[in-house]
Amino acid sequence: MPHSNDLGLRSFIEVAPNSDFPIQNLPYGVFSARDGTAPRVGVAIGDYVLDLWELGQDGRLGVSQLDVFAAPMLNPFMALGPKVWSRTRARISELLRHDNPELRDNAASRDRALVPMANVTLHLPLAVSGYTDFYSSREHATNVGVMFRGKDNALQPNWLHMPIGYNGRASTVVVSGTKVRRPRGQLKPPSAELPSFAPCKRLDFELEMGVVVGQPSPIGEMLTEKQAEEMIFGFVILNDWSARDIQQWEYVPLGPFQAKAFATSISPWIVTREALEPFRVHGPVQDPTPLPYLQQAQPNNYDLQLDVGLRAPSIRQAANICRTNFKYMYWSSVQQLMHHASSGCAMNVGDLLGSGTISGPDKHQRGSLLEISWNGTEPIELSGGVKRTFLEDGDSLVMRGWCQGDGYRVGFGEVEGTIVAAE
Amino acid sequence: MPHSNDLGLRSFIEVAPNSDFPIQNLPYGVFSARDGTAPRVGVAIGDYVLDLWELGQDGRLGVSQLDVFAAPMLNPFMALGPKVWSRTRARISELLRHDNPELRDNAASRDRALVPMANVTLHLPLAVSGYTDFYSSREHATNVGVMFRGKDNALQPNWLHMPIGYNGRASTVVVSGTKVRRPRGQLKPPSAELPSFAPCKRLDFELEMGVVVGQPSPIGEMLTEKQAEEMIFGFVILNDWSARDIQQWEYVPLGPFQAKAFATSISPWIVTREALEPFRVHGPVQDPTPLPYLQQAQPNNYDLQLDVGLRAPSIRQAANICRTNFKYMYWSSVQQLMHHASSGCAMNVGDLLGSGTISGPDKHQRGSLLEISWNGTEPIELSGGVKRTFLEDGDSLVMRGWCQGDGYRVGFGEVEGTIVAAE
Repeated sequence: MPHSNDLGLRSFIEVAPNSDFPIQNLPYGVFSARDGTAPRVGVAIGDYVLDLWELGQDGRLGVSQLDVFAAPMLNPFMALGPKVWSRTRARISELLRHDNPELRDNAASRDRALVPMANVTLHLPLAVSGYTDFYSSREHATNVGVMFRGKDNALQPNWLHMPIGYNGRASTVVVSGTKVRRPRGQLKPPSAELPSFAPCKRLDFELEMGVVVGQPSPIGEMLTEKQAEEMIFGFVILNDWSARDIQQWEYVPLGPFQAKAFATSISPWIVTREALEPFRVHGPVQDPTPLPYLQQAQPNNYDLQLDVGLRAPSIRQAANICRTNFKYMYWSSVQQLMHHASSGCAMNVGDLLGSGTISGPDKHQRGSLLEISWNGTEPIELSGGVKRTFLEDGDSLVMRGWCQGDGYRVGFGEVEGTIVAAE
Repeated sequence: MPHSNDLGLRSFIEVAPNSDFPIQNLPYGVFSARDGTAPRVGVAIGDYVLDLWELGQDGRLGVSQLDVFAAPMLNPFMALGPKVWSRTRARISELLRHDNPELRDNAASRDRALVPMANVTLHLPLAVSGYTDFYSSREHATNVGVMFRGKDNALQPNWLHMPIGYNGRASTVVVSGTKVRRPRGQLKPPSAELPSFAPCKRLDFELEMGVVVGQPSPIGEMLTEKQAEEMIFGFVILNDWSARDIQQWEYVPLGPFQAKAFATSISPWIVTREALEPFRVHGPVQDPTPLPYLQQAQPNNYDLQLDVGLRAPSIRQAANICRTNFKYMYWSSVQQLMHHASSGCAMNVGDLLGSGTISGPDKHQRGSLLEISWNGTEPIELSGGVKRTFLEDGDSLVMRGWCQGDGYRVGFGEVEGTIVAAE
């Protein structure tokens, strides 16, 4: 286990045991303080944001290109590569330790570098170069297949041979807290003779994790498992908002387009691959054995708990509607990245890869309302008679995720989105 | 008709009658001179590139933010908006007129600002923010449909109701002249029991035009015809390279992914919407009438001739394999853009929209080898017994396009790509 997860590692900053942001985590984000400073790079620690640009002013951080932290996105820092990511993380960890007086006993530095999280606004943490969305949960693909094609043809013939994915729309990736306008689109229910253009009636979420690619790969070249692994900077929680009725009418033969182009929400903190290292687990057995270019020597899944709450306007408390785990994914993020580059497709710093909806084997582990309400045929009761099949205006959807360590958790915070009516 | 196409308008620079770049055109590109200057913005005129940064040094160009021309991409200039595009074009036209002495009689300025095209390297003219590919030729969609589904179900039910499209991969859009490596991918011919990973055996081109979006639109908002029109900066010729065998196995249900991710080639000069103005024509009659959000009041097609040549390594001359016209497209670029934003999808400066393969009603007007060789069943003879169904290593594919005026042509130059073997 890497040093940063040593038993007993703790910070001089008090961190509650159920906080998402102990010293074992140290996720990166982009924040602006309420006093009007421009957005720049910070690290979450307990209830504070560590301002890396301020922290680095006296050379203490050991990063020579300090201006990467003055940027309103992580891309310039990510471009420096995995050795710098690792060194910077180790140094931040060292500076925050309970037994290191460097920052702990320097009140002036502490005051400048530690901003209470209550006083900051969090921004989209990266400029998204390309957004790709996969479809890598066997349970999700099977549920959808059973619904639309019946039990015998649930999985498409290609599904067990490669991570199926498509290019999504990067321009509408937004940060948690951004309101989501119900999209309009062409709808043609089976009963209608002609399509109409109207607000979506079957608005859904999809619970996913997003991989943040931090290093490029050249056009024309494939990736080894090690190369793919080292290109991954970190992970976010991702809500792939979906208009099921628009999707149904438009998607043949070229796939989802406007049905998923109106918004994709991500959590504001990028949890690094290194922070997730202690939580690696084997994914499901892959049978048939993948083709050699997709084989992986080491476990590339993570034991990462996920939780979805839905809050209707008339209800005070969000109702939990899904509790699942990232470890169920059939195809790993490393396999997705190897497949993505397999044709020679160039990857860029800032590419974002959605995992695909994360469903599990049990009924309460379904990661979309399409599955939870079984295509609208089984409404769920949130509380006091309030029911849902799909999302209504005013509904808020909140996703949370964390890895449970011994006495600490490495968490992602949340990704929240509230639906506003179509104009 | 706008002034720039006045009969008799001509430049003091001699321009051959069959040149693509008379004073009526003035397309924008990014060039570097062989003397080592960094890539920057220029305009093609005859056999010269007009260096806009040099030209603007004495304030003569009337553009206050001159640094937009020192950029290695058109995006900063495009961001200035359609009024600046129009004013700049008018001023460049004025400066190049045969009867204007300002530049004509100033040898020092002329020497600095006019670079022989033979001495420049042309670069990708824009940073591609998002790449979207449509499927808007009725003839192409019908040909493909007949091949794979039979005559009775050739067009999918949604096709006549909206411009079908999908998000493509922006990271591999390359400029004309870039070699294209044959991609590897998963292949599973119907006769094989399992897929294998191997070099594509059915490598194809697709003849398309690309729309360059020069203005953004906000998330959550739709576009009127006028807004969509004014966001279009110009057009390029686009080759949507396609690996048919990879596509066939991967595309259900989420559309093309690695089959089209390895390369998309575009011509180096962006011909402006204003230069194409005199060549507007009505497109095919749209029946059924499109939904109101897709209706257009004015003709939005262009009479633009297109020509595809294929040169095999053993043959000196390229064989013409397709001669068609952009005017055949069923859905116009303006309709594509209105549909793209219809869900509230934000558009960005630098978005590139492929029209979809441009086929026409006649056999010689088919814009892909898939159609030309009827899915490989009808090889074509290039010359002296050399035949092709799909592209072989060493083959060069050259596309050309132009609008024919009275005594001049507004042309695009060419987009060329040569296939190199898979590694």
